[in-house]
Amino acid sequence: MTAEENLKRLGIVLPSPPQAVGKYVPWIRTGSLVMTSGQLPWEGSVMKYAGRLGRDLSTEQGYAAARLAAINAIAQLKDAAGDLEKIANLVRLEGNVFCDEGFSEHPQVLNGASDLFVEVFEERGKHTRTALGIRDMPLNAAVQLSVFAEVRD
Amino acid sequence: MTAEENLKRLGIVLPSPPQAVGKYVPWIRTGSLVMTSGQLPWEGSVMKYAGRLGRDLSTEQGYAAARLAAINAIAQLKDAAGDLEKIANLVRLEGNVFCDEGFSEHPQVLNGASDLFVEVFEERGKHTRTALGIRDMPLNAAVQLSVFAEVRD
Amino acid sequence: MTAEENLKRLGIVLPSPPQAVGKYVPWIRTGSLVMTSGQLPWEGSVMKYAGRLGRDLSTEQGYAAARLAAINAIAQLKDAAGDLEKIANLVRLEGNVFCDEGFSEHPQVLNGASDLFVEVFEERGKHTRTALGIRDMPLNAAVQLSVFAEVRD
Repeated sequence: MTAEENLKRLGIVLPSPPQAVGKYVPWIRTGSLVMTSGQLPWEGSVMKYAGRLGRDLSTEQGYAAARLAAINAIAQLKDAAGDLEKIANLVRLEGNVFCDEGFSEHPQVLNGASDLFVEVFEERGKHTRTALGIRDMPLNAAVQLSVFAEVRD
Repeated sequence: MTAEENLKRLGIVLPSPPQAVGKYVPWIRTGSLVMTSGQLPWEGSVMKYAGRLGRDLSTEQGYAAARLAAINAIAQLKDAAGDLEKIANLVRLEGNVFCDEGFSEHPQVLNGASDLFVEVFEERGKHTRTALGIRDMPLNAAVQLSVFAEVRD
Repeated sequence: MTAEENLKRLGIVLPSPPQAVGKYVPWIRTGSLVMTSGQLPWEGSVMKYAGRLGRDLSTEQGYAAARLAAINAIAQLKDAAGDLEKIANLVRLEGNVFCDEGFSEHPQVLNGASDLFVEVFEERGKHTRTALGIRDMPLNAAVQLSVFAEVRD
């Protein structure tokens, strides 16, 4: 199935790709790579998941936050590539989790993004990942994801 | 205007590119990409901005720290490309801000780098960005920036 | 000397490349770049260095942790390239150190990885580096390293 068919099957309507919250651009292409800026769990203009994992938010909420930020990342990739079928492969997910001292369930939180990428892009959705517990975040966002993908013309 | 003309207009004299503070190199080229190591707010051999945002330093000082680290990054790019006109495009700014618990003005701090990149490289200065609040930093540096740029021969 | 000869000289037997701790893959190739996922100080199935630098672990233990995670990264690069002689150059080491408030010896810790890369790959082992002090880590790992390398066919 195509990525668009998988999105439809999952009941996901891609939003407009979120704008930058500073003097930068949401994605850039260099050679065959697209890189996104840090993606946050925006739902439209609302920061849906703000707060620290391990204190303000449960791991389940963190999973939902990572999934939502990943939906925004897919919207950026579509804007960059024009068509999600031109995404040859996801490459890299830098996963940053806003957390309280002692939290260590970053992998479970970030699986919210990784699971979605594989559901949508299937084999092309496989990616490398980093997972860090971050002290402070812009806008108190629960997660910040940065995505690299390979594009084919 | 060229990047050198913009630097002159801004009154910026590029320093010698700072040396690494460990067993690594300050920049590397792979294909058409140059990547820098983490750039700190050195002024010559002095760490001009040390300390935590939200405790030791104001957001305005953080902006100045990011601008200074960005000047050092531009010096690295010039060393890598030989000529700043060979920088086809900035690609990515990984912005790490040393901060106290609860600080969330990372975007305003990192605009010190992003604004400068656009002032110097104009359209070519557009870049993606990540913004994280970091618990601890080498040398207590207020910011650490890592830059990717595309080079043309 | 080849990388394999240097490993033998150092008495290092590469382990099986560690599996991912989530829904991702341990490495990926895009163009001529290989990128690894975050590498942790696993010794087989044991997390050998867990805990915070500056509280639970000494800087010397941190150096050993970075060296061990770097051995795992080399195992990933071999799995990706098939033969370590196909690694044209290391490119980038993202060095993340799990630490207590106030720790700033990240460069000394990460030299455990950087020194090994140069011992094994010699001139080809030179790399750029970022060094951050991280608040919380998956599995309480003392370090998490992410490596980019350029491959030749």
